[in-house]
Amino acid sequence: MTNTSSIGPGDCADALATLRERSPLVQCLTNIVVAQWTANVLLAVGAAPAMVDNPEEAGAFARIAGGVLINLGTPYADTTAAMEQAVGAASDAGTPWVLDPVAAGALAWRTEIARKLLSDSPTVLRGNASEVMALTGGAGGKGVDSVDTPEAALDAAVELAGLHGTVVAISGPVDHLTDGARVVKVANGHPLLTRVTGVGCALGAMIAGFAAVLDDPLVAAVAATATLTVAADAAASSPSTAGPGSFAVALLDQLATLTPAELAARVRLS
Amino acid sequence: MTNTSSIGPGDCADALATLRERSPLVQCLTNIVVAQWTANVLLAVGAAPAMVDNPEEAGAFARIAGGVLINLGTPYADTTAAMEQAVGAASDAGTPWVLDPVAAGALAWRTEIARKLLSDSPTVLRGNASEVMALTGGAGGKGVDSVDTPEAALDAAVELAGLHGTVVAISGPVDHLTDGARVVKVANGHPLLTRVTGVGCALGAMIAGFAAVLDDPLVAAVAATATLTVAADAAASSPSTAGPGSFAVALLDQLATLTPAELAARVRLS
Amino acid sequence: MTNTSSIGPGDCADALATLRERSPLVQCLTNIVVAQWTANVLLAVGAAPAMVDNPEEAGAFARIAGGVLINLGTPYADTTAAMEQAVGAASDAGTPWVLDPVAAGALAWRTEIARKLLSDSPTVLRGNASEVMALTGGAGGKGVDSVDTPEAALDAAVELAGLHGTVVAISGPVDHLTDGARVVKVANGHPLLTRVTGVGCALGAMIAGFAAVLDDPLVAAVAATATLTVAADAAASSPSTAGPGSFAVALLDQLATLTPAELAARVRLS
Repeated sequence: MTNTSSIGPGDCADALATLRERSPLVQCLTNIVVAQWTANVLLAVGAAPAMVDNPEEAGAFARIAGGVLINLGTPYADTTAAMEQAVGAASDAGTPWVLDPVAAGALAWRTEIARKLLSDSPTVLRGNASEVMALTGGAGGKGVDSVDTPEAALDAAVELAGLHGTVVAISGPVDHLTDGARVVKVANGHPLLTRVTGVGCALGAMIAGFAAVLDDPLVAAVAATATLTVAADAAASSPSTAGPGSFAVALLDQLATLTPAELAARVRLS
Repeated sequence: MTNTSSIGPGDCADALATLRERSPLVQCLTNIVVAQWTANVLLAVGAAPAMVDNPEEAGAFARIAGGVLINLGTPYADTTAAMEQAVGAASDAGTPWVLDPVAAGALAWRTEIARKLLSDSPTVLRGNASEVMALTGGAGGKGVDSVDTPEAALDAAVELAGLHGTVVAISGPVDHLTDGARVVKVANGHPLLTRVTGVGCALGAMIAGFAAVLDDPLVAAVAATATLTVAADAAASSPSTAGPGSFAVALLDQLATLTPAELAARVRLS
Repeated sequence: MTNTSSIGPGDCADALATLRERSPLVQCLTNIVVAQWTANVLLAVGAAPAMVDNPEEAGAFARIAGGVLINLGTPYADTTAAMEQAVGAASDAGTPWVLDPVAAGALAWRTEIARKLLSDSPTVLRGNASEVMALTGGAGGKGVDSVDTPEAALDAAVELAGLHGTVVAISGPVDHLTDGARVVKVANGHPLLTRVTGVGCALGAMIAGFAAVLDDPLVAAVAATATLTVAADAAASSPSTAGPGSFAVALLDQLATLTPAELAARVRLS
């Protein structure tokens, strides 16, 4: 049912160069924990963030944004109303959008919201293994952390991709990404990524940015994942990194300075 | 009325080791200013943060969380409703919870909310001296900063501890902590702590984490305070620290790398 | 219509010394993206932040705060209600307040809110060129970024200053500030400032802090701009700066350690 991917390091490099050249406007409807971090990640990598997340404006802005992120980290009545409007407008206008179902499976209310949003066919669904599995009926994780591996969630991801016409990006030690037909694995990254809040959330925003400037959403998701995790490898080995605080700072620096050629040389795809 | 504590450096070391081994899930209903910082502090020290703060989910999550933080920094109608539900569920389920009455005394509305929450007997009340005194009828501080010393607030703390069956942790140059019977003072810390927003707020979250894995909430509050302030001492003397920005980064690093043995060797308890 | 300013480097130095001596309480009604950063900038430079942004308390607090910031980055129904109350109370009590009309012109709802707030005569209006021009009927920028230069917005700024009795501070490569009669240009700053979210938002908060302790709001706006951009120059050339992440950290350090004498020596006013 799935084929070996033909997406390679050169595609990631080209994607990063294109992102920086076009600096897409990325509308983020995200949570209060990671909003600043997400904006700084987008600015560092070369995109233009705009956190328009109120119901009066979210729909109109989704028509002019290059990409939209819907992140369920801290949903409220007003922001979830804004999400519905942004998704409706994005779908109508052809704006690519990313769904990040934070803690789906662990909490009933947001799991229902996530399922409803998924039925609107996001361009990309990004989550950890437990979140992805929860959307096909799995048990869900412990709070916001996954208790399952990406490998275990791959079948669920392929199923969701086929059902909803979405690319599914499962984050974990080895990221697994699929559009239902192709499967790509990205083996970069470092355990310190789990000690900084919002790295996965920021990856969702980066995917929205790459999807804004690329035709193939699987390439967008792979390139965003590759860029973040290769930058993380470099940040982890930076002489200034002595723990999660300095690692997060170095990660922003690396996202800004990583070249497409370095990305192509270091990414481990399979 | 109060006895010299028998809580010692070894208790703090054991507590930190236990926290890291069990990585408790800490639900934070906190403010928009410090949510990211609080999550990063919890991740650095070894706990698992989850900022579930909406009225649809806060109660259910308080039943599965290891500890709950209620912080009144930026209360809104929906988040205060969520706080009530979280507190009700935590009390019912036996989940330890911490009340941080930010700016109580300075503002009438939140002072009333804080008094009502205090009447629900939090496991631990953490605040600066002015906030603690305001809850017994004192005048309150200047905005979010204390105008009183922990020494001056100790009588109020002992009174509140007795009335509500709560541990009271007064933050300041020398932290004073009491359960009404015992008093512990922690003399670590650095003035740079007052130049970074949310350090006290993050301490409240850390106390919730330690209380999740320890039976004695006074030990939990002392161990959390010791861990934060000993890490701050180390961060302040780090060669990379040149001001409040780099200090905050080094503090996260130190929270992640401080060993229980170092904690026991450096903490100044009395 | 406008005169050469007589505001000089010595005025900036005196302003910074006064700010640090008096440590004004700055109430910030701002957005979820930059709330932490804004508080840390204010703490670093020597002011006392308090993010009181709910409708139950915002009005009362504006009467005791030294200055108030109204920032439209992520407006919601409840926070915009709080803004109206804060502005009413600040105007009534004579508390200086700053309006930052983030993304005015790009979005209809907030543009209307910004125009209404502007008609209440803020002490200072701070924005980028597109935002300022949008308030006189211009087309507005791309999301939160300016597509116009401060030079092009100066006529609009002079017009708004005269109409509303407000100082207008236009941020950009060379900041332009005017009270309608005088024009001051500040030529410090670094392109890395555009790669960190919330620098302009934090400048608005700093202006509110300086306005709290100075009689002349144009001097306050110039001194705040000078302090931020001179600190940015120093941060950009710091040996620890390797990208936007470490630059932001160094900027906080520099805001805390920059002396009035250094400020006077390095600021480029005209």
